Amino acid sequence: MFETLKTAHKKDPALRGLAGYLNATLYPGVHAIWAHRASHALYSAGVPVLPVAISHIARIFTGIEIHPGAKIGKRFFIDHGIGVVIGETVEIGDDVMLYHGVTLGARGFLHDSKGSKRHPTVEDGVVIGVGAIILGPVRIGRNGRIGAMALVLDDVPPGATIRAPKANVGRK
Amino acid sequence: MFETLKTAHKKDPALRGLAGYLNATLYPGVHAIWAHRASHALYSAGVPVLPVAISHIARIFTGIEIHPGAKIGKRFFIDHGIGVVIGETVEIGDDVMLYHGVTLGARGFLHDSKGSKRHPTVEDGVVIGVGAIILGPVRIGRNGRIGAMALVLDDVPPGATIRAPKANVGRK
Amino acid sequence: MFETLKTAHKKDPALRGLAGYLNATLYPGVHAIWAHRASHALYSAGVPVLPVAISHIARIFTGIEIHPGAKIGKRFFIDHGIGVVIGETVEIGDDVMLYHGVTLGARGFLHDSKGSKRHPTVEDGVVIGVGAIILGPVRIGRNGRIGAMALVLDDVPPGATIRAPKANVGRK
Repeated sequence: MFETLKTAHKKDPALRGLAGYLNATLYPGVHAIWAHRASHALYSAGVPVLPVAISHIARIFTGIEIHPGAKIGKRFFIDHGIGVVIGETVEIGDDVMLYHGVTLGARGFLHDSKGSKRHPTVEDGVVIGVGAIILGPVRIGRNGRIGAMALVLDDVPPGATIRAPKANVGRK
Repeated sequence: MFETLKTAHKKDPALRGLAGYLNATLYPGVHAIWAHRASHALYSAGVPVLPVAISHIARIFTGIEIHPGAKIGKRFFIDHGIGVVIGETVEIGDDVMLYHGVTLGARGFLHDSKGSKRHPTVEDGVVIGVGAIILGPVRIGRNGRIGAMALVLDDVPPGATIRAPKANVGRK
Repeated sequence: MFETLKTAHKKDPALRGLAGYLNATLYPGVHAIWAHRASHALYSAGVPVLPVAISHIARIFTGIEIHPGAKIGKRFFIDHGIGVVIGETVEIGDDVMLYHGVTLGARGFLHDSKGSKRHPTVEDGVVIGVGAIILGPVRIGRNGRIGAMALVLDDVPPGATIRAPKANVGRK
């Protein structure tokens, strides 16, 4: 649990000094990860319903929804976090960081069958920016950088940077 | 009320078997729709303030804001749901499905006058993907498919598919 | 405090007549601004941890996260508000309006150092549409209009209008 606090302190420039560690204990991203460690352990042990209940209670307080089935590595951090949705068959490596509004989701009920691998695999060291949406069983390669508001429906090679189109400036 | 659970079970691949029905009773999308059926009935009966209070309490627990004035058809389902905003003069047909982060909104206070039809009409069978934003009194035709993160400001013909631009891949 | 209610009533077409003022007292955008006035006063007085705690409790109820350090002018209004994130070194002028899902954020931990000005400056009279994301220490000039879902990473001149690309229509 302390590892999550240390990661938050390191990666959020708004956390400074000792008070920064106290502030980090209030962070929704930190709470959501703690709740997921619990719900995932119960889910892996085959406990019914309770894991999903923990996930939804955590969502009420954090704005972050992580399905108990998602597999998440070490030193994971979500900054701000509101609007984040992480699906059932997501696999996340170590040292991954997400900002708020990120979806790691499925293609939707028109494409998917029950029980299949429907969600992204995110390798070690990836950073995913505000509001990025990654859908389907795609693979985001090691140390990839997914820019804010990027829509990703295909594999991303290791080390690649993905950028969403910027908006156009026009006078009225 | 059971119809909403049946729809969730049918459309979410993460819901399987009998436990899936129990899990569905925990779903924010299900709670938000139940709350809206109540707030809309009170609103239609001319009760002041209380309908908006119900809508905002439901929003705290579900992350989904549905104005009590919105008219919504049968077998409506919202998956995940956080960040969904549905405005006062929205009209939704039967068998419509939304994912999280969808806005059915107005053009904004610079364009709209009080009491006018300011929000979209969504016909039967439409599916709207994660984070799509539909603004103004436009019409989304029967069985339309609005892709994730699409920005829609015009009418969409029946059966059409709308796709947002994908992000570009570039090496650093 | 009453000024915030008056601003909401003026700018939201769903608020009409006297009941509209009562409805406005239920608005998450109104609650978030009141909470920020308190947290910012404590933060400016050098109180540790408590300001961030107020900010996160307000976020649970409103879906709006405003860092206590952000400086916000008069007659500020956030409509709906869920998903809004306003960072530590943001500066907002008078008569600014945001819709839900707006981020006034930083470029991320790969770019920023602790304690630097990392977030946008938004001048008087700016309106920012649903889901727009503005990142980095950029300046949005007086009376600028940032359209829904716009991604802004550069300065915007006064009076300019920014529009995100619309989605493409295609038959299946």
